[in-house]
Amino acid sequence: MLETVAKHACFGGVQGIYAHDSASTGTRMEFSVFVPRHNQQRACAVVYYLSGLTCTWENATVKAGFQRVAAALGLIVVAPDTSPRGEGVPDDDAYDLGQGAGFYLDATQAPWNQHFRMESYIAQELPALIDENFPNTSKRGIMGHSMGGHGALTLAMRHPDLFQTVSALSPIVAPAAVPWGRKAFAAYLGPDESTWRGHDACALIADLGWHGDIFIDVGADDGFLDEQLQPQRFKQACAAVGVDLTLRLQPGYDHSYYFVASMMDDHLAWHADRLI
Amino acid sequence: MLETVAKHACFGGVQGIYAHDSASTGTRMEFSVFVPRHNQQRACAVVYYLSGLTCTWENATVKAGFQRVAAALGLIVVAPDTSPRGEGVPDDDAYDLGQGAGFYLDATQAPWNQHFRMESYIAQELPALIDENFPNTSKRGIMGHSMGGHGALTLAMRHPDLFQTVSALSPIVAPAAVPWGRKAFAAYLGPDESTWRGHDACALIADLGWHGDIFIDVGADDGFLDEQLQPQRFKQACAAVGVDLTLRLQPGYDHSYYFVASMMDDHLAWHADRLI
Repeated sequence: MLETVAKHACFGGVQGIYAHDSASTGTRMEFSVFVPRHNQQRACAVVYYLSGLTCTWENATVKAGFQRVAAALGLIVVAPDTSPRGEGVPDDDAYDLGQGAGFYLDATQAPWNQHFRMESYIAQELPALIDENFPNTSKRGIMGHSMGGHGALTLAMRHPDLFQTVSALSPIVAPAAVPWGRKAFAAYLGPDESTWRGHDACALIADLGWHGDIFIDVGADDGFLDEQLQPQRFKQACAAVGVDLTLRLQPGYDHSYYFVASMMDDHLAWHADRLI
Repeated sequence: MLETVAKHACFGGVQGIYAHDSASTGTRMEFSVFVPRHNQQRACAVVYYLSGLTCTWENATVKAGFQRVAAALGLIVVAPDTSPRGEGVPDDDAYDLGQGAGFYLDATQAPWNQHFRMESYIAQELPALIDENFPNTSKRGIMGHSMGGHGALTLAMRHPDLFQTVSALSPIVAPAAVPWGRKAFAAYLGPDESTWRGHDACALIADLGWHGDIFIDVGADDGFLDEQLQPQRFKQACAAVGVDLTLRLQPGYDHSYYFVASMMDDHLAWHADRLI
């Protein structure tokens, strides 16, 4: 059962906000869907946009400016939340663990394993819900920012039949090797680091590969570049297995949504070239 | 003295957030300025964007998506706050009076008259500050949304030497006749309604006229349309004095920034056609 929270006309299409009771997370989950006017005439490809730490559907939906180019290209864009939320859902005082920091995996460790099942949510439940309620859809792409870039890369490689394209902005590409990822993986997956490999983009590209090319933009003045992002690790990992990665280091840009908005046209156009 | 709060690379230009101690309001005021990369080579026209009730510089700057088209056209965009703020500044529990609801006039009534001097701020102090700190500028336009549309229309007509162009989204055009305006004017200007006329766009177009054409977009599904906006009043007032008004009623659109973002390209292109 899908509850419509709000609908707004936007660039000739409809920006909707929806909620449902998720079987995966056991919580009420909200997400946004932009449907371009093209969808009245033809099936449209769907790009899933995964947000970063502390975000909800709202950050991307109000700040990323994706509607204009999605409307021009005829893409549906789905922006889910970054974790389960609410009373009774475990949390942590830090911004990088717990609510707002689901890391797009199914936690195996208590107390997180009851609700923090974001992989099941994003890669099973949500696409089924979208396809059921927005029936005129075609192929799927996935992209994300920061922790959401990690989510996009890992979920694409883990579910290659589900997602035909993947791109990322300022992604965490080596979570098993950087502070944000190590903290989250230790909490959600436990101390046995061999279990982390299945959720680390650099390890996954070596273990599973990818059926297409990959597109990543990172700001050269991103304050998280050296400690948390380290995109060159993914460049090396892709090169080692012959996956075609376009990695652009954008001079002057930081980690903010001013960067995301600036790159959004290129990313959605890249997905559209491959999905439409 | 201008304090730089933040600077972000954005669409090849720079989105800055600045603060200063305002002589007009007697408070610290923040505003945002987007400077396109064109400004390194040539003088750029400046469009002032005035926001509506409850907003700060932030709403338009993160939600309106103006940077992409301003970068393409080579426009500087300045987004000020909607009122003085802070401890010691009078306020009201209602969203439509006091902080966040300055109505772009100089209040004459206590307790508002000490700080609520937004006309002096927007039409004198801020342009001087912009010209001093961003010296490579040319002509000025002004636009706004809702209460900011009221501000744009009234300040343009009251300062025709300062602003060469004016447009508005979902503006309050007849504040002396609608609840939002009557409440604010009674508080800020007092019970003598003859003093309100100088801050009512419909009255001003009759009394002062305007040297150019005017462009207004309003959402046909805007929940404030009938009670607070009543754009046909301004259409009639413009027609009566022969001012060329383009008034578009946009089917399906509401009062939100999804509407603002959807119309922003057309408005900035319209200003650019007249300013560059």
